[in-house]
Amino acid sequence: MTTDGTACAAETLRPGDLSNPVAVAQALIRLPSVSPDPGESQRLLASMLEALGFSVTHLPFGEGAECTPNIFARLGTGGPHICYAGHTDVVPPGREEDWRYPPYAAHIADGLLYGRGACDMKGGIAAFVSAVARQAAAGGVNGSISLLITGDEEGPATYGTCKVLEWMQANGQIPDYCLVGEPTNPRTLGEMVKVGRRGSLNAQIVVEGTQGHVAYPHRADNPVHRLLAVLEALRATPLDNGTQYFEPSSLQVTSLDVGNEATNVIPARAQARLNIRFNDLHTGAALIGWIETVCRQHAPRSTVTAKISGESFLTQPGRETRALVAAITQVTGLEPALDTGGGTSDARFIAQYCPVSEFGLVGASIHKVDEHTAVDDLEKLTCIYQTFLQEVCA
Amino acid sequence: MTTDGTACAAETLRPGDLSNPVAVAQALIRLPSVSPDPGESQRLLASMLEALGFSVTHLPFGEGAECTPNIFARLGTGGPHICYAGHTDVVPPGREEDWRYPPYAAHIADGLLYGRGACDMKGGIAAFVSAVARQAAAGGVNGSISLLITGDEEGPATYGTCKVLEWMQANGQIPDYCLVGEPTNPRTLGEMVKVGRRGSLNAQIVVEGTQGHVAYPHRADNPVHRLLAVLEALRATPLDNGTQYFEPSSLQVTSLDVGNEATNVIPARAQARLNIRFNDLHTGAALIGWIETVCRQHAPRSTVTAKISGESFLTQPGRETRALVAAITQVTGLEPALDTGGGTSDARFIAQYCPVSEFGLVGASIHKVDEHTAVDDLEKLTCIYQTFLQEVCA
Ligand SMILES: [Zn+2]
Ligand SMILES: [Zn+2]
Repeated sequence: MTTDGTACAAETLRPGDLSNPVAVAQALIRLPSVSPDPGESQRLLASMLEALGFSVTHLPFGEGAECTPNIFARLGTGGPHICYAGHTDVVPPGREEDWRYPPYAAHIADGLLYGRGACDMKGGIAAFVSAVARQAAAGGVNGSISLLITGDEEGPATYGTCKVLEWMQANGQIPDYCLVGEPTNPRTLGEMVKVGRRGSLNAQIVVEGTQGHVAYPHRADNPVHRLLAVLEALRATPLDNGTQYFEPSSLQVTSLDVGNEATNVIPARAQARLNIRFNDLHTGAALIGWIETVCRQHAPRSTVTAKISGESFLTQPGRETRALVAAITQVTGLEPALDTGGGTSDARFIAQYCPVSEFGLVGASIHKVDEHTAVDDLEKLTCIYQTFLQEVCA
Repeated sequence: MTTDGTACAAETLRPGDLSNPVAVAQALIRLPSVSPDPGESQRLLASMLEALGFSVTHLPFGEGAECTPNIFARLGTGGPHICYAGHTDVVPPGREEDWRYPPYAAHIADGLLYGRGACDMKGGIAAFVSAVARQAAAGGVNGSISLLITGDEEGPATYGTCKVLEWMQANGQIPDYCLVGEPTNPRTLGEMVKVGRRGSLNAQIVVEGTQGHVAYPHRADNPVHRLLAVLEALRATPLDNGTQYFEPSSLQVTSLDVGNEATNVIPARAQARLNIRFNDLHTGAALIGWIETVCRQHAPRSTVTAKISGESFLTQPGRETRALVAAITQVTGLEPALDTGGGTSDARFIAQYCPVSEFGLVGASIHKVDEHTAVDDLEKLTCIYQTFLQEVCA
């Protein structure tokens, strides 16, 4: 293809450049792809994978404004089948004039590559592409390698990874192991592998009372006091003390809303919102049941509206995770922590199908102005990914 | 005076009518006086009192829109000096078409006198005027009788009773005992005398925290949790168990306000409002000090803004209150409770100068559509007031 910008951008990479993660990352960053990815950036990635021999299936899902480009690309057909998952979409850059270097210039200064997506996660994808390119040059792998790439991880994610996984399931493409390339390291490359994530649920509690004058509380039914009793009960005992790979579950009340301006009036209703990040000792449904029980006890006239954003999951470290850890230690000299903290990622969807872990760049600057990654880290991550592939596909 | 409406309204009362509380109440109700009283209603009352021999001093306070008419009227100069306090202003009628009879028509139907102010408290004032008129016809009293009438009790009350009391103090007019004619009976005339009132204070607590992501609560400082801890501590133990004439003090949280729409964000600030109705075991200042101490303990970065609407007060029942109770029992056959419940009234200002109690009509319909009083109750209240005057000025 020589007629569109995607092909042009790809052609600015010389043939040997796919082994160079910095050049690959720069090419991807220079095609803006604020979520949901309008497609150019992902088409460039597809053309790179095709150049490496991957068979690429484009899997757009959703209609109109929600239309999300996704690809599934596979190299080889044998086992073991190792999948790398990631996203080409990025969060908005904010005010571009606040950036030291323009967000889509992919400028390198003082050993740092600046740009939106540099670490979350075009840089990670570039490292994996280069790892495959180098390994291909070194004789390839036994088994097969695939990539599950979505254009909507940062947005609602409705038409992204979930849908691709359904397609993979229907087409016999579920891998033996999946590595998600999200930036998992807080400060230094090699610090942290994620082997699971906490679950998350949001609940809104609305308590109805009976309005009245503050001077006659016995004639009213103060919904604020009932709500306080509910929240006291929910907060009275910790949910747990943590497990082998998980921090203690955490309940945070994020809002209280009554909006009563009259100082002499007991209001008719009070509401609270809360979020629970929970570990593998809980399920979302059981926690919602608990909230409902406490509400019934302290505020019979109340309603609980809850939404589970994701259940907790854990991939008990096995052969592949041990290989990943060994590769990290070999390249960086660090012993990564096996962690489950932080927010949710698409790994929560993948965990429903196969073992999954996450390892990528340093995440300190993600979603901020001046997002950047060390050029050195791109090289090291490429080495880690290649070493991992050699080991697990040996 | 024959040139203004006030005089005309007064002249529609025949000379003997001042002994008729129904006629007096009707004349007062027919001159609308939504707070602050624009003056006509109060001028009519002044003319009635002058007709009874009172020396009337007009005491307008405040400027412009806040200008409040008040009068102090005294009959006789000797002791004991018994004062009757009340207000000619009324609360707005609301939608006049919602009334069974027009709010200023003073219509009588089925033994009930309807109209804004019928029981709060033009009816009460009328009963006192008629009691004095009847007693004058029966030979007068020893000692002296005064009336402290404000045109702003229902509003901010800044330029009403307080200011008149300062004037009375400065002019040697502080009475030996004051009877406030507010409607004190919940359902039946004779049920209840008020001998004090609880104090009231409003406080606003604003807790500052540190905003953050709900997934990393240890990096944030959730002001909602600190506020909940403050409110738990404030509500943990009852303030007291009540005293001889007082119910237990009551703390009501009336509002909680965070307004955080983001389910994944720990907010930066949280606030609550509360009201305390407190008895004679507390002072407003001590309670505010307690709230501040609890806040310092659980939420060092918090501010408390408090306002004392009134301190609690109690007039230990003495000779005059006993005379009032005896008069009530003689006329109604009921033994009135000596109570301190309910909202605040201008008695809180008077209590700073002399013993005070409150007794008036049945208050069930005050501030509502179709405010009304039983015609019979006007007659009975007149008898009670006259019997009381005979006894205390004997
Ligand atoms: Zn990401
Ligand atoms: Zn009143």
